[in-house]
Amino acid sequence: MTAQPPSSQTASDQAASPPDPRNTAVLTITCPDRTGIVAAVSQFLFVHGANIIHSDQHSTGAPGGTFFMRMEFHLGGLDLAPEPFERAFARVVAEPFGMGWRLSYAARPKRMALLVSRYDHCFLDLLWRVRRGEVPVEIPLVISNHEDLRRDAELFGLPFHVVPVTRENKAEAEVEQVRLLHEAGADFAVLARYMQILSGDFLRGFGRPVINIHHSFLPAFVGANPYRAAFQRGVKLIGATSHYVTEELDAGPIIAQDVIPVTHRETPESLMRLGRDVERRVLARAVAAHAEDRVLVEGNKTVVF
Amino acid sequence: MTAQPPSSQTASDQAASPPDPRNTAVLTITCPDRTGIVAAVSQFLFVHGANIIHSDQHSTGAPGGTFFMRMEFHLGGLDLAPEPFERAFARVVAEPFGMGWRLSYAARPKRMALLVSRYDHCFLDLLWRVRRGEVPVEIPLVISNHEDLRRDAELFGLPFHVVPVTRENKAEAEVEQVRLLHEAGADFAVLARYMQILSGDFLRGFGRPVINIHHSFLPAFVGANPYRAAFQRGVKLIGATSHYVTEELDAGPIIAQDVIPVTHRETPESLMRLGRDVERRVLARAVAAHAEDRVLVEGNKTVVF
Amino acid sequence: MTAQPPSSQTASDQAASPPDPRNTAVLTITCPDRTGIVAAVSQFLFVHGANIIHSDQHSTGAPGGTFFMRMEFHLGGLDLAPEPFERAFARVVAEPFGMGWRLSYAARPKRMALLVSRYDHCFLDLLWRVRRGEVPVEIPLVISNHEDLRRDAELFGLPFHVVPVTRENKAEAEVEQVRLLHEAGADFAVLARYMQILSGDFLRGFGRPVINIHHSFLPAFVGANPYRAAFQRGVKLIGATSHYVTEELDAGPIIAQDVIPVTHRETPESLMRLGRDVERRVLARAVAAHAEDRVLVEGNKTVVF
Amino acid sequence: MTAQPPSSQTASDQAASPPDPRNTAVLTITCPDRTGIVAAVSQFLFVHGANIIHSDQHSTGAPGGTFFMRMEFHLGGLDLAPEPFERAFARVVAEPFGMGWRLSYAARPKRMALLVSRYDHCFLDLLWRVRRGEVPVEIPLVISNHEDLRRDAELFGLPFHVVPVTRENKAEAEVEQVRLLHEAGADFAVLARYMQILSGDFLRGFGRPVINIHHSFLPAFVGANPYRAAFQRGVKLIGATSHYVTEELDAGPIIAQDVIPVTHRETPESLMRLGRDVERRVLARAVAAHAEDRVLVEGNKTVVF
Repeated sequence: MTAQPPSSQTASDQAASPPDPRNTAVLTITCPDRTGIVAAVSQFLFVHGANIIHSDQHSTGAPGGTFFMRMEFHLGGLDLAPEPFERAFARVVAEPFGMGWRLSYAARPKRMALLVSRYDHCFLDLLWRVRRGEVPVEIPLVISNHEDLRRDAELFGLPFHVVPVTRENKAEAEVEQVRLLHEAGADFAVLARYMQILSGDFLRGFGRPVINIHHSFLPAFVGANPYRAAFQRGVKLIGATSHYVTEELDAGPIIAQDVIPVTHRETPESLMRLGRDVERRVLARAVAAHAEDRVLVEGNKTVVF
Repeated sequence: MTAQPPSSQTASDQAASPPDPRNTAVLTITCPDRTGIVAAVSQFLFVHGANIIHSDQHSTGAPGGTFFMRMEFHLGGLDLAPEPFERAFARVVAEPFGMGWRLSYAARPKRMALLVSRYDHCFLDLLWRVRRGEVPVEIPLVISNHEDLRRDAELFGLPFHVVPVTRENKAEAEVEQVRLLHEAGADFAVLARYMQILSGDFLRGFGRPVINIHHSFLPAFVGANPYRAAFQRGVKLIGATSHYVTEELDAGPIIAQDVIPVTHRETPESLMRLGRDVERRVLARAVAAHAEDRVLVEGNKTVVF
Repeated sequence: MTAQPPSSQTASDQAASPPDPRNTAVLTITCPDRTGIVAAVSQFLFVHGANIIHSDQHSTGAPGGTFFMRMEFHLGGLDLAPEPFERAFARVVAEPFGMGWRLSYAARPKRMALLVSRYDHCFLDLLWRVRRGEVPVEIPLVISNHEDLRRDAELFGLPFHVVPVTRENKAEAEVEQVRLLHEAGADFAVLARYMQILSGDFLRGFGRPVINIHHSFLPAFVGANPYRAAFQRGVKLIGATSHYVTEELDAGPIIAQDVIPVTHRETPESLMRLGRDVERRVLARAVAAHAEDRVLVEGNKTVVF
Repeated sequence: MTAQPPSSQTASDQAASPPDPRNTAVLTITCPDRTGIVAAVSQFLFVHGANIIHSDQHSTGAPGGTFFMRMEFHLGGLDLAPEPFERAFARVVAEPFGMGWRLSYAARPKRMALLVSRYDHCFLDLLWRVRRGEVPVEIPLVISNHEDLRRDAELFGLPFHVVPVTRENKAEAEVEQVRLLHEAGADFAVLARYMQILSGDFLRGFGRPVINIHHSFLPAFVGANPYRAAFQRGVKLIGATSHYVTEELDAGPIIAQDVIPVTHRETPESLMRLGRDVERRVLARAVAAHAEDRVLVEGNKTVVF
């Protein structure tokens, strides 16, 4: 449940005034709702010298509901090294309240693998945002079923692996993809318009979150060719949806959605072109939220702080 | 196909400078696409002294495509009274090009009937807008299956007819509704959150356009309880769709759509409350477009100029 | 600083499951930022049986920054009546941390006075939302400098006072307005397109928050005729801004803003018509936020939870 | 006034069915409003075999108003080569109506020069869009006052010229920039976050349109550091404006604007980061509109078809 602490020096003494933005951590919690949770967590952090920067909470409200919390805090004044701090938190707070929890350290950004096919827009947009520091991740590898985007990947200095996928070799191809992902130490994977459906075997084999961008406003236009379907239905908005991948196609928990207005003047082709801008914006938003531990999943829904 | 001209005085001589906004007409055309249409229409209008104020056109483009046009013009300089003008247009332009066409006069606003149940938001919003002159219509009557909104209707000086609808009397109730609509001379009807499904018999009996507001971003969440369905799916946007009613539920040509962002904090009830703002905005936009002859229907899609 | 508690019965025993939404309170806090605030507040609430429903916090971050918090909680399990509860909070938590704070009870909605002139759109929209329960306020009176909206006010059962304002009598008129507001026990006032500038004397005399809706995207187009100014500049968006009124015209803390796209086709008149929809939406959002104690003011800026 | 026709072969016989999208032209017209303009233009095009694909028109309406039109048509059936076609149009239509006009051929895309400094977001976004065919231009050169973006430009195969600009050498630097632009045959220039103010001498020397992106919702926050100014004013939306450059800073005709919502949580730095997404979207929209001859300028305002 808990990530490995990056190193013991994160517990060193706090800098006088402008605190190091890398010397922070995020604690996320999911547990049965009851009174006293906020008090217990904030008291624990206060006592151990963790200075809360942001705090968000949510409750599903009904009796028997679920409580969600995200707290971001500075580690500079911590009186324990990360490991004993986590052990203490588990014993003193998490266990009594039956919490599922995770602690992520800014000093150890998540490792994001990218799966792509031929479309470059979502791919380039993510690479550029990572380069600018907008999305706190490292990219250990790019996997594609085509050669097309090799040059773009390599210009950003990224390993590019082509794993061709055919109807016949799909199972083996997925085994190879999962092997590459594990070898690269990927914490999560992003399908940046990767044009193959992942099997349950892949998802179980990888065992970590996979984020997809679907080019429609789900649940409208599930499946292939949503822009053509939108054109035929004559909708006045087109959209994009980023969601966690589950075995059921286009049915996983939604992280982000957006739309843009369109008119009768559009063709399926121009819808596709306009849609690219929404797709890359929505995917970037979802990936940033995941990378910053702002997404908590409960059943088929997300809490996005 | 053509509306009755309001009166012969519309062909009187034009005022010197600020032309009377009521002394205008809108010509809408749908026909097989070919070269020369714009030239023929604009030449005809020019020759007869009609001064074009706005012009919009659209073509579905493919060979064998359809051409749509809307032209708004001043009647002040017309050299013919409306009736002979229409006859001449039919003979000289419309017939050679195989046009479906309609001429509407600002001096004769459309008569809009309202069907309502218990929700007041779309209903009041339309009444306010009509009172302010934002939507160029007259409202000859309001029909409801409940008493609830009687007082609101009567404060606006509108005849309010209650036609109770039960599973048993539905066919007769619809006959009565159609009779009231015809008696009131309604040019079109608006279902301002009217909570009954209209049968094909109603639609054929009335024989004129019926506009509905559906409280979801169609084609997502067709049918009853879309806010509950949206809540369960965990979408991050909720929307509303205004469309012409056809026999197939929630499947008619879409006139307008819009959405607003929502978060995990919403309940089905708060979605319903937030949705009211979108519903009334979208319905008002669709009704205004229809009232101003800016909507042309082709198959299951609309052109909205 | 603290509101009067509604009555001692709010401390009665909690209903078994679905807690009464009226039996809640909101605590808002502004204080110098330091560690331990969240722990102290949440501990105090927990110990006294207040069950936190929502919690938001914000810090301006810099050393010497300001901390803002809003906590909404159920009163059903409270072990003290409101008055001793507030006294205990003041002594145990607020004073040690140097907090400015306020406690508002859902059972005692704020009293909102409306000032209007001739435009009805913002006015009617607010009345309708209050009637539907969307904005938790009572409206003790409406003040206008014109007779025009008397009938609308009276249909909603609201006292309507006309205080004519001329260049000559402005000072006296404001004295009369302030007298009416105090007599009616108004907690805050909303200028729903009230077309007179309020003097510093009015603001000091009333001594409570006044919310205005300005029909532009401030700070663009300060002052009179913003739609005309927007037309002349040729902007592609028009907007509205709701803000607290201060002595400097259109310069008070902004609560909410929104815009809609416009094109070259608009005239100053059509901008004004389109703008009405944005104005009423933005004002309603600001008024609801204020009524729900979600707005904290710091200098010339707001924190809106 | 007229562009050089691309070549005589554009007048060759039309392909049977799917007409070549490159074999089209756009005619834009600005002239005093009077009756008969649409009839004259459409008649001329029809007679010479030009098949209208799209047509837009606008009139400023008042007596003595201005008429604007944009017509896009296929050249395949043209009975004249471009040059005699243009001469005929000038003599038969344009002169009698006192038209300013321009004819642009899809086969000869405009040549867009880019001026950049250190920010890469608008620059890269435009390069990607051009590479994908979203914006119909050729890029003959990139000019910068810094070396930073050389590698990005060269990866796209674009000539990259550094012209350092200091307070002392500004006049000479501009002379050199204008020389480079003319030498490269630039039809227009885009300031993709170029951080120097262009003088009137530059604008007159280049003599062609220059498009800028300003990082605020003009006319709010003219000048330097708009994000800091937005932060200090506490606005709830930030925006971007793309406009033609004139001698008066940030006051030229606006082509496109957009905004995004922001909250009290943002810092000047995070506003800058969020703003980048709006800036690149707005600039891309403005550049595409210009490249497709959809922008007509009249005084300090634009008509964007």
